Amino acid sequence: MSVFCFSLKDIDLAEVGDFGIHVKMLAAPINPSDINMIQGTYPILPDLPAVGGNEGVGQVVKTGRSVTSLKTGDLVIPADAGLGTWRTEAVFAEETLLKMPPDIPLVCAATLSVNPCTAYRMLSDFEILKPGDSVIQNAANSGVGQAVIQIAAAKGIKTINVVRDRPNVLELMHRLKSLGADHVITEDMLRKLETKDLFKKIPKPVLALNGVGGKSATELLRHLQHKGTMVTYGGMSKQPVTVPVSALIFKDVKLCGFWMTQWKRDHSWNKEKVKDMITDLCNLIRMGQLTSPACQEVPLADYQAALEASMKPYVSAKQILLM
Amino acid sequence: MSVFCFSLKDIDLAEVGDFGIHVKMLAAPINPSDINMIQGTYPILPDLPAVGGNEGVGQVVKTGRSVTSLKTGDLVIPADAGLGTWRTEAVFAEETLLKMPPDIPLVCAATLSVNPCTAYRMLSDFEILKPGDSVIQNAANSGVGQAVIQIAAAKGIKTINVVRDRPNVLELMHRLKSLGADHVITEDMLRKLETKDLFKKIPKPVLALNGVGGKSATELLRHLQHKGTMVTYGGMSKQPVTVPVSALIFKDVKLCGFWMTQWKRDHSWNKEKVKDMITDLCNLIRMGQLTSPACQEVPLADYQAALEASMKPYVSAKQILLM
Repeated sequence: MSVFCFSLKDIDLAEVGDFGIHVKMLAAPINPSDINMIQGTYPILPDLPAVGGNEGVGQVVKTGRSVTSLKTGDLVIPADAGLGTWRTEAVFAEETLLKMPPDIPLVCAATLSVNPCTAYRMLSDFEILKPGDSVIQNAANSGVGQAVIQIAAAKGIKTINVVRDRPNVLELMHRLKSLGADHVITEDMLRKLETKDLFKKIPKPVLALNGVGGKSATELLRHLQHKGTMVTYGGMSKQPVTVPVSALIFKDVKLCGFWMTQWKRDHSWNKEKVKDMITDLCNLIRMGQLTSPACQEVPLADYQAALEASMKPYVSAKQILLM
Repeated sequence: MSVFCFSLKDIDLAEVGDFGIHVKMLAAPINPSDINMIQGTYPILPDLPAVGGNEGVGQVVKTGRSVTSLKTGDLVIPADAGLGTWRTEAVFAEETLLKMPPDIPLVCAATLSVNPCTAYRMLSDFEILKPGDSVIQNAANSGVGQAVIQIAAAKGIKTINVVRDRPNVLELMHRLKSLGADHVITEDMLRKLETKDLFKKIPKPVLALNGVGGKSATELLRHLQHKGTMVTYGGMSKQPVTVPVSALIFKDVKLCGFWMTQWKRDHSWNKEKVKDMITDLCNLIRMGQLTSPACQEVPLADYQAALEASMKPYVSAKQILLM
């Protein structure tokens, strides 16, 4: 049996040398994938002992003499997963960091590199979406889901947002609509007749975004347009995706997956494409069209409580560690 | 309750007029999809009464004055599904027929327009396959499966062929290998250890072809290479395709479907592309690299026995009606 011990420790800081960048971390969220990585159920398994956390924002304290892209005072976010952001300071290699503009709110910067990037890519890379087209998604209240709603709304793309039924569902629906969601429905509502009326108002979705799997994913497929695509980026239900053969053959739907970590690795040679994405997202943030999800800010010392809170079901607030 | 009555009838022949083509049918197979169409479970539902059969070969008896692409004596096959080939003669429109070279054996011509075309397109349109690459397929003994084996072998592409266990399985393995199959294994063998050794000899498949669905499809996915594609063209098990979420996200596999009828409709404007495919397939037939599946030739009058024989499980011989 493996036991994961999690504790706050003082470790030696590496030398900055010629190529290193000394960064003071400012804020870092706790994402579900961070927990999976600690549990050992994520495809990236760092050598132990390891520092947790894959997202966050820091400020450059000092740079090595050969560093050209960053200077003291710059805000930075991780360029890839596995950096270990839950710490007060560290020395990182230049290529592991992306520069953030100074006017982006800290919490937005700390939560930009996974969820909004995932939403941005899924809305860009799988179907050519025109204003007026529609997208259907489950897990609409997740970090990715909220980013999808906002980025789609900014592009004039209609969203049909599926959420699990819960005690405060009307409040949730109201909140997602205030972000720009066109329609918010529960999984039960999606199964019932009312959706027939829905598709009189807006076109059937050409793109479905699946963060849940199981029956929820099958239900998205059922409403997808002929020749549409379903992109799976998560499996919160821990159930596989079940696809009727007729949907593949006669409806000609396509299924694929998206993993931001892989995308970043596949595009590490193409820094312009990465920068363009960050620039676009920062512009949306400045225009008030992309906000961070509801966050609970927690001092690093209280990390145990934050970890526990992040694992509770129906958590609407993301835990953010402040260093 | 709907009852399907099937009988042999004399019906009036349409006028040839300026644009019609009077065709004497020579041979037409009974395919599983023909049966599905009669049962009403196929997405094409002709108005009743209707003539069955979607494949076959005929000979032009007479052409209308304005017909330019065909002349008396030409061999023809259907350009699309739904033509109704189980008859002795008919008057068809010019655009519903494709010309066949005169040197192609009748049974090959009669069985060319669905299965070999499906195999050809699935090997061409989804992944760029180089000689030495490998493809995995289930239903390897089906009409499509046998065509996949032969077309792949002609291109130097390795095939891993999965068949259901059955009394004469060794004989079947031998027969498929004689067609050019590199590896023939039962579903049970695929689940067990021996396949680890298999992938020491040949690369993991970049393309999986699924005519079965259910567990068999999930098993194909398990052996697919990173970023590979599974194309579903049939669902003989009547079970949906179940995809682990991790295969989509972390292995980045893609799933799509293929339906020859839809492809032909999507490409009806592109006659050159259709002709190129027929020419390529006819060249393979001439070189002995593509043979028709084992056939049982039956006079049209014995259609009832042929229909019954075609619906028996583990049928290895395709029923061909001779007019």
